[in-house]
Amino acid sequence: MNDLLRTRLFHELDSIRLIDPHTHIEPHAAASKTLADILGYHYYTELIHSAGMPREEIEEAGLDPKEKVRRLVERIDPLRNTFQYAWLMELARTLFDFPADEELTNGNWEALYDSSARRMAEPGWEQRVLEAAKLDAVFLTNQFDDPLEGFDTTRYVPCLRTDDLVFHLANAEVRQRLERSTNSEVSDAASLRTAVGKLFERFTSKGARACAISLPPDFSPVLSPIGPKRSEFREIANKVDSALAVMQRGLESGDTTEQHVYDGYPRVISHFVFSLLVEFCAEFRLPFDLMIGVNRNVYENGVHQGQDLYDSRVSLIQYRDLFNFYPDVTFPISVLASVTNQELVSYAWIFPNVVANGHWWYSHTPSFIERDASARLEAVPQTKQIGYYSDVYKLEFAVPKWAMYKRILAKILAEQFVVDRGWSEERAVELGRMVLRGNVERIFGAG
Amino acid sequence: MNDLLRTRLFHELDSIRLIDPHTHIEPHAAASKTLADILGYHYYTELIHSAGMPREEIEEAGLDPKEKVRRLVERIDPLRNTFQYAWLMELARTLFDFPADEELTNGNWEALYDSSARRMAEPGWEQRVLEAAKLDAVFLTNQFDDPLEGFDTTRYVPCLRTDDLVFHLANAEVRQRLERSTNSEVSDAASLRTAVGKLFERFTSKGARACAISLPPDFSPVLSPIGPKRSEFREIANKVDSALAVMQRGLESGDTTEQHVYDGYPRVISHFVFSLLVEFCAEFRLPFDLMIGVNRNVYENGVHQGQDLYDSRVSLIQYRDLFNFYPDVTFPISVLASVTNQELVSYAWIFPNVVANGHWWYSHTPSFIERDASARLEAVPQTKQIGYYSDVYKLEFAVPKWAMYKRILAKILAEQFVVDRGWSEERAVELGRMVLRGNVERIFGAG
Amino acid sequence: MNDLLRTRLFHELDSIRLIDPHTHIEPHAAASKTLADILGYHYYTELIHSAGMPREEIEEAGLDPKEKVRRLVERIDPLRNTFQYAWLMELARTLFDFPADEELTNGNWEALYDSSARRMAEPGWEQRVLEAAKLDAVFLTNQFDDPLEGFDTTRYVPCLRTDDLVFHLANAEVRQRLERSTNSEVSDAASLRTAVGKLFERFTSKGARACAISLPPDFSPVLSPIGPKRSEFREIANKVDSALAVMQRGLESGDTTEQHVYDGYPRVISHFVFSLLVEFCAEFRLPFDLMIGVNRNVYENGVHQGQDLYDSRVSLIQYRDLFNFYPDVTFPISVLASVTNQELVSYAWIFPNVVANGHWWYSHTPSFIERDASARLEAVPQTKQIGYYSDVYKLEFAVPKWAMYKRILAKILAEQFVVDRGWSEERAVELGRMVLRGNVERIFGAG
Repeated sequence: MNDLLRTRLFHELDSIRLIDPHTHIEPHAAASKTLADILGYHYYTELIHSAGMPREEIEEAGLDPKEKVRRLVERIDPLRNTFQYAWLMELARTLFDFPADEELTNGNWEALYDSSARRMAEPGWEQRVLEAAKLDAVFLTNQFDDPLEGFDTTRYVPCLRTDDLVFHLANAEVRQRLERSTNSEVSDAASLRTAVGKLFERFTSKGARACAISLPPDFSPVLSPIGPKRSEFREIANKVDSALAVMQRGLESGDTTEQHVYDGYPRVISHFVFSLLVEFCAEFRLPFDLMIGVNRNVYENGVHQGQDLYDSRVSLIQYRDLFNFYPDVTFPISVLASVTNQELVSYAWIFPNVVANGHWWYSHTPSFIERDASARLEAVPQTKQIGYYSDVYKLEFAVPKWAMYKRILAKILAEQFVVDRGWSEERAVELGRMVLRGNVERIFGAG
Repeated sequence: MNDLLRTRLFHELDSIRLIDPHTHIEPHAAASKTLADILGYHYYTELIHSAGMPREEIEEAGLDPKEKVRRLVERIDPLRNTFQYAWLMELARTLFDFPADEELTNGNWEALYDSSARRMAEPGWEQRVLEAAKLDAVFLTNQFDDPLEGFDTTRYVPCLRTDDLVFHLANAEVRQRLERSTNSEVSDAASLRTAVGKLFERFTSKGARACAISLPPDFSPVLSPIGPKRSEFREIANKVDSALAVMQRGLESGDTTEQHVYDGYPRVISHFVFSLLVEFCAEFRLPFDLMIGVNRNVYENGVHQGQDLYDSRVSLIQYRDLFNFYPDVTFPISVLASVTNQELVSYAWIFPNVVANGHWWYSHTPSFIERDASARLEAVPQTKQIGYYSDVYKLEFAVPKWAMYKRILAKILAEQFVVDRGWSEERAVELGRMVLRGNVERIFGAG
Repeated sequence: MNDLLRTRLFHELDSIRLIDPHTHIEPHAAASKTLADILGYHYYTELIHSAGMPREEIEEAGLDPKEKVRRLVERIDPLRNTFQYAWLMELARTLFDFPADEELTNGNWEALYDSSARRMAEPGWEQRVLEAAKLDAVFLTNQFDDPLEGFDTTRYVPCLRTDDLVFHLANAEVRQRLERSTNSEVSDAASLRTAVGKLFERFTSKGARACAISLPPDFSPVLSPIGPKRSEFREIANKVDSALAVMQRGLESGDTTEQHVYDGYPRVISHFVFSLLVEFCAEFRLPFDLMIGVNRNVYENGVHQGQDLYDSRVSLIQYRDLFNFYPDVTFPISVLASVTNQELVSYAWIFPNVVANGHWWYSHTPSFIERDASARLEAVPQTKQIGYYSDVYKLEFAVPKWAMYKRILAKILAEQFVVDRGWSEERAVELGRMVLRGNVERIFGAG
């Protein structure tokens, strides 16, 4: 009986039009061209590498797309139990009519490669995928110097990604990108602030709906420009001035490595820039997506985008001052490790400006999503949780990923709301609609 | 089939008379007077504030109770998914005949307000609520200077709450309360010890059944009076003497703030007083409830009792010495974050004096309770776990909160004991009876 | 329906012949002689002690086995809810025809004691237990100076346990055991390296299949002999030389305690020896089982093997360098706390040389196994997870412990693969076969 109930709820949820509030879609090439774009997703390359395929064979320079797919399929056996492989099969069956009773093998990959390439080359493929995924709009992840031109920003919604600004401004190339993209010189705290302000102006004028950053587990904002210690601003600005001056000298002397200035200065600048971002989020009324907990480049010889891991020992208490000092900034928060989800539930339950946001990366597997979403749905106000974002690099993946989430959501609503709490199915679907779509509209002012 | 089994087990469990081993009931006003007492529970005010209602509108001075309820109901929509709202509905339906098919709305709250106020004003209301909750007795949370007079201490069982003594003795007002309530001067380690001893004498003479404290995540007892380092007592007492002398001078000079003496002295005194409490728990044979993991005042502008959060990075290894040095003191332990529950299971499995106690605060939501209770029921001796306490401020909430726990317990017993392990239903109910009632009686000497 | 499906899958899984990749079996006395060997398992003595029985009564010197069992059964009531007690009952029913409707009581233990003792004394008992457990081979835990003689090493497979070498070489007795067992003098870094190399030679010549160690939560390898900082080897060797020299002087002067040299030297040696082990694992192509997270002797007055606990605040990021520097060594990893399981899943998903291994000790309870195994089965390549090891001290326990795991595995495969993902039952059983047996063969080169 519960199985039928789950199915009914899933079909209702599955009829809802969606806005995907976080992806890595490239708007000029949103859909895939060949199966190599699909199997090149880091979820496959990293798992196939982890299961034994040398990185060099996967990432060989100039490798023909078809040959790449041939190689990956040849080594895909160890992945057949994973949910990532399940996405691949659902994608192939839904979008490319891959037979329901077949697995992807050495014997049939080429037929799929060729037939899918033909489909992808048809006019309107991108639109067909958006329809299959029921997506009205898709949020992007734009580098700060992205020109944001040549695409429909109501369909592909700009978001200002700020990792480089906060963590890599000590790198001369990043400073130069900032200067060029804002047409200004960045030499001290004041000019840095001006430049960042220009970014916000440009992004919001292009319809940006969020500022976003991923943060390492040991990051704890030291808020300088405003907050209760406003009197200390001059002192901090002086430190920032010195830090930037040292960087500049490094640049002029030709030594542009981060190491040259790595004696505390980058940290000073990181915290200063982070503070600027929050300040401008308040001024421009942009939500600030915090994606908390990633350590970059842990596996140094991993494949592209398959090198990052984490330390699950992180706490939202590190963001206590941030949440207190900026009551007017909304912080949609994603956590990397499921253990932090309970803190996210509790902080969203207490702080008006904290919103629980999706299921990120290593917590983006069915058993963790079910566990984490259950805890949110029973304790966080229904208006303060964004159920899901797909995080995809190519549109096609939105189809199986959203479907996975909707099945889990249907299961939770069936078991914990309809059965355990006696809710009507209609009411359960309404809750689903709010976390799937309504909150994305209201929190980000989208749609 | 499992649904019917769960229902049968629930009904058996629901017939058991209970003792609630931890509440914040005020014995002179145990039941509510109006719906404002119900909706004023911090679980509602903090969630409604988190969902957007300004604190000032909730906590306006001199606000009429009826107007307060009107305002809160007007903003209650975002909470309808939460288990806290589910408590409210179950309470209203069970105690006030609120219609089963209605939600609390702008259109019907006033009728409920008026009809419930009439019921609450009837003679015997308190007794009727106790009957509805099937409660024989209720443990209190008494400040150390509570006179403990004017109520039936077999029904409302005193417990000595000690947060102020351990963490706020640097505050002159707290010291004065201690001096007044013990009719003694507190000027050095020896007189402090005498005063604390008098508290234990008074509380136990009034039938107190537990000493209790909530502790921040970074607390790790430094045990001074006894334990293997007894020889160091003189040295520690000297430090305490100095600390108290400094505080006293602060008091005389008119500077009574904690800041004045905040140079390590409060920490010395915290650990000393904590040690005294343990020592007297041993002497007076009182269990010492430890509620581990709360950070106070994290959200500075939150509503009353809606400001506390936590850092889930805490370990029971911090209490290693305590458990080793005091084998004769029973420590019923509550943990704030579910991640710590596994440690609690393991420490209760190994240490004879560690008992798992209820599901505290942010872990007091159905999915965490189910997960944490399952882990305890399968691995901690059945005699060493106290299933539940309600933590309520008003008696009415005992009805839906205990019912929630009994439903979860019935689900675990049905699925994991009757189905998975082939237990008889009778045997499952006996296990339920032990964690619901029997262990409260035996561990606290109550009932 | 799901219940029948679970049962069918269980029966398929239960027909698979097994290799147990981690136990503490003593190959010269693999099976039990009396019920005292069974009830003497630390899982029972520690729980019965925790539930109130004084250690002295359990561990009285020279206690008659029958009297020991009488005493333990007399106090076994508090354990009847635990999964450990469930093992005992399944063992008694499966191996000794204990009636299915009886519990172990004061009234029937003696009959079971006598009848089981007769069975155990029959010729071929060990073989019958191996058949009942369906075990083809069993991995051992051998101290480094174990002669590894007098038993069939294809049935009882040696594994080199290295805790003493890494953590207790400051203890003169351990150094003497090393010198004796390798017939060499250990006086400096070079001779220590030679001695450890001899251990690997001897163990691998006897068919050893793994090196293994348990590690405290605060351990983070500092890799000295090789890795990117190879140039520093001389410096580290000098430190090791000094450390060993100091130890040697302690030995000669008669002061052989660890305290004498506890000024950093043992730490230097721990990291050095750990590095040597990894280096030799690479050279001899042995997997290195890391069992991460145990604090020894936390409960000082606990029963034998019932004194260890943990701090769940540990991260695999502590092993980052190890995984990067030794790509050719396979690390089957067990974690003590379930919270670390998500990191284990993620690290096994990214690092080719990390394998998830079984469910250790305090995470070896049904609800944690189900949760942790689910997360692995959906996200770690199927070739990189060893489903289970029994960790038993006596063969009889392999029967109920493996059965427990197979039931949980059948439940996960039924619910999450057959029902949720539409897998055929045959395919689900094949996945089960791989994690139960196939991976043990391939990863350890066993069977």
